[in-house]
Amino acid sequence: MALTANEITCDLELVRERSPLVHNITNYVAMNSTANALLAVGASPVMAHAVEEVEDMVGIAAALVINIGTLSEPWVAAMSKAAAAAGKKGIPIVCDPVGVGATPYRTRVFRGLIETAWPTVIRGNASEIIASAGDFSATKGVDSAAAAESALASAQWLSGQHDCAVCVSGETDYIVDQDRVLLIRNGHPLMPKVTGLGCTATALCGAFAAVQPDRFRATASAMAVMGIAGEIAGEKADGPGSMQLQFLDVLYNLTGADITQRLKISEQ
Amino acid sequence: MALTANEITCDLELVRERSPLVHNITNYVAMNSTANALLAVGASPVMAHAVEEVEDMVGIAAALVINIGTLSEPWVAAMSKAAAAAGKKGIPIVCDPVGVGATPYRTRVFRGLIETAWPTVIRGNASEIIASAGDFSATKGVDSAAAAESALASAQWLSGQHDCAVCVSGETDYIVDQDRVLLIRNGHPLMPKVTGLGCTATALCGAFAAVQPDRFRATASAMAVMGIAGEIAGEKADGPGSMQLQFLDVLYNLTGADITQRLKISEQ
Amino acid sequence: MALTANEITCDLELVRERSPLVHNITNYVAMNSTANALLAVGASPVMAHAVEEVEDMVGIAAALVINIGTLSEPWVAAMSKAAAAAGKKGIPIVCDPVGVGATPYRTRVFRGLIETAWPTVIRGNASEIIASAGDFSATKGVDSAAAAESALASAQWLSGQHDCAVCVSGETDYIVDQDRVLLIRNGHPLMPKVTGLGCTATALCGAFAAVQPDRFRATASAMAVMGIAGEIAGEKADGPGSMQLQFLDVLYNLTGADITQRLKISEQ
Repeated sequence: MALTANEITCDLELVRERSPLVHNITNYVAMNSTANALLAVGASPVMAHAVEEVEDMVGIAAALVINIGTLSEPWVAAMSKAAAAAGKKGIPIVCDPVGVGATPYRTRVFRGLIETAWPTVIRGNASEIIASAGDFSATKGVDSAAAAESALASAQWLSGQHDCAVCVSGETDYIVDQDRVLLIRNGHPLMPKVTGLGCTATALCGAFAAVQPDRFRATASAMAVMGIAGEIAGEKADGPGSMQLQFLDVLYNLTGADITQRLKISEQ
Repeated sequence: MALTANEITCDLELVRERSPLVHNITNYVAMNSTANALLAVGASPVMAHAVEEVEDMVGIAAALVINIGTLSEPWVAAMSKAAAAAGKKGIPIVCDPVGVGATPYRTRVFRGLIETAWPTVIRGNASEIIASAGDFSATKGVDSAAAAESALASAQWLSGQHDCAVCVSGETDYIVDQDRVLLIRNGHPLMPKVTGLGCTATALCGAFAAVQPDRFRATASAMAVMGIAGEIAGEKADGPGSMQLQFLDVLYNLTGADITQRLKISEQ
Repeated sequence: MALTANEITCDLELVRERSPLVHNITNYVAMNSTANALLAVGASPVMAHAVEEVEDMVGIAAALVINIGTLSEPWVAAMSKAAAAAGKKGIPIVCDPVGVGATPYRTRVFRGLIETAWPTVIRGNASEIIASAGDFSATKGVDSAAAAESALASAQWLSGQHDCAVCVSGETDYIVDQDRVLLIRNGHPLMPKVTGLGCTATALCGAFAAVQPDRFRATASAMAVMGIAGEIAGEKADGPGSMQLQFLDVLYNLTGADITQRLKISEQ
């Protein structure tokens, strides 16, 4: 059975009530908008990347989000250290393979990361998920080049190999965990016109995984909330500038009724 | 006597007339919104953190703002160097202890910084001010965990120890300088839902301290302008997205009449 | 003959059709807004600065944009490496001398960069162009201190010396290439009140140079689109907050009719 609107609303309420501290080691481009989205959904964001403090920050966090969008060696070292600490502590680790496949360095770093860390969730677009799974395909920057469906096999492989939930986001989002697959068809064409909304989706997965122990459900709830907020925002927006603003306003004010009326979820 | 609306308006006019160059060594999350707020209030922002140039940048600046939100060793080195140059030159140094208390590294770095630099103003939330003052309390990320009032004793201790003004910001802002205490009760509940507005308040303290030599008055003026702009913006906003936009628009258009009508200031 | 509205519209259509991947090594302040502007104009942005991957990223990019706004040694090394790779590959290199003249380090780095790389376009404000050309003048931060006209001689010198197009932006934009000079008088007084719009102009030059091989025309088209979008946005805005939003919305929706009605271009 697919996840219900009620269950998603419950998860959203949990995020708002518990306001989990989400520790982000993320990219320069999306840092501000990610922090704002986490605040808007009701979570508590913190960004910290110094090797001197990531273990301590993980120590007070309820989830760790790792995003390699603007990676460099000092940040990669911090990501590894933070992931090890999160694994030891047992908090969820959500990983975003931004641009994996675009350069060998990015691909190597991300594969190394998920081999040593045990991610709870991996979320990327189709080409990133394909490249993360070892198929060799050059992505066109950080946009979704391959169609989401074609990444399904890669996602299932990744899920099995790394014992995690995987989300392939696109016009249809695929949430995969071993043999389970959910499809979410919410969203709006303006979403890919705003930079960092993929990174925001990953951060929301972190917020939901912090309060919902079922990783498959947490990922689906986060992506449904993301898609529905984006859909409502897109209908109110005149372009990517107002889209950004509306997205945060809508996410902040999102109700169970919005979720019930809008949710387009199905099992494969 | 508490600061009057007229005095605050005069300070705001000074910022707009002189457009002081404020050199910020700040965090990745708030850099863009801080720069925009400094422009909106009439100041001239510059962000620079390379050890090779911070002394020269201080040389042309009217104030230095140091914010440890996303600190790492190379940045800490630049902060120390810049602070030493600012001290030698005699321009105000405003420090923001973002997340102090959350990790030992952050606490150690910030205490080291204010022991060697001579800050003119320190602005933080209650838990950050408590941790900066040496009370050992773990903050919950970068939000205000402790109530502002409880930080008053710490603020007074910091003010005496480091010969500076201290602002504890929250629903009520406390501006402290030795035995003087001012309370400002402006603001709006949406303000903590926008990331980096605390960092923005710190940057505004820098802009005001650059033109107003009385550090206590400069801090109070900056926080009053911040709170009043936030209050008006909050009343116009539908959520944290529109709050961001409105805050900059309101700050840019703020009049003496707004300040006169809204100001809620009192002595303790 | 000056560039026509039709030619500019053709270039804009080319950007939208081809969606060139623009590789940015840029500053922390403007990264998010630059990425959003590139998306709004129809291009595909990627930000990457690790020395381990810049050559590979250049390998899949259609243009390279280098902006020294928040430079430091590891970034300078990546800029050099990326510029060499872009030169070898033959894609356009657009350079932004943010704050050149403000500190000796900045000036030295930028001059070194344009001496070894072969920039296709240099875009800066008047004081930055003057300082890049070797006149010794201290800029007041990153704002335009000198009037744009006074930089014309420096721009012509730079254009000859480095065989590139040069844009001096300000109330009037001067686009220079050897003995050709175009003046664009579009824009709005709110534009300098939004941080990073200069950096955005530079990034747009990259997007246009990626699809239009005539560097002089590409630069003029980008600056005209920038100025006209800013002009329309400014008329709709109530301050710098709404200006940011409107700029992206307008840029995204800009039509040939807007360009035809608004364009103020002339030869010198």
